[in-house]
Amino acid sequence: MTDPNCIFCKIGRGEIASPKVYDDGVVFAIKDIHPRAPTHILLIPHAHVGALADAAPQEADAAARCVRAAAQVARDVGVTAGGFRLVVNQGLDAGQEVPHFHLHLLAGRRLGAMG
Amino acid sequence: MTDPNCIFCKIGRGEIASPKVYDDGVVFAIKDIHPRAPTHILLIPHAHVGALADAAPQEADAAARCVRAAAQVARDVGVTAGGFRLVVNQGLDAGQEVPHFHLHLLAGRRLGAMG
Repeated sequence: MTDPNCIFCKIGRGEIASPKVYDDGVVFAIKDIHPRAPTHILLIPHAHVGALADAAPQEADAAARCVRAAAQVARDVGVTAGGFRLVVNQGLDAGQEVPHFHLHLLAGRRLGAMG
Repeated sequence: MTDPNCIFCKIGRGEIASPKVYDDGVVFAIKDIHPRAPTHILLIPHAHVGALADAAPQEADAAARCVRAAAQVARDVGVTAGGFRLVVNQGLDAGQEVPHFHLHLLAGRRLGAMG
């Protein structure tokens, strides 16, 4: 189930042009438009998954699949030797910007504190 | 499969005392001994999962289950309203300290940059 007004749902459906660097039908990946590191990719479930803590089991599974997809993307873009960080922000204290679950893949420089 | 010399494996097996705040048989959680936020909990697969990018499918599944477990723990400790951040560090650039996959749950204050 996607949300007609959600920007990530629109990208997933191809209604907003944003080249996908990965897509397995459940999870897709795009480059972050405001990159915080040389590699900054977002892993996003096609289904509209809102707050992780409230997610139905199928939605939580889709969110968890982002971790496995991130491992694949990390291999694809060649950042596994240097290392990488995966980040999920949920809610105000974490500075979540889009209320559709997404996982950040950050790499390409020595990363600082986790927050 | 656990590693006899790995500190997280030893905690998982109960050989090193560290109170578990969550344990579903696949994933357990402990408080970080050097907390970077008022709530700082580690979600850890019982199986010794090394580099995520090299993980066998069963290991990657165990790692992904940490995300679902983190949602449960976030509910249990009452940080879902304020928000929380999940972080996985892999390798040198991310500052990974223990080479057994783990997911950080950070909450309880306004978090800063992701790295």
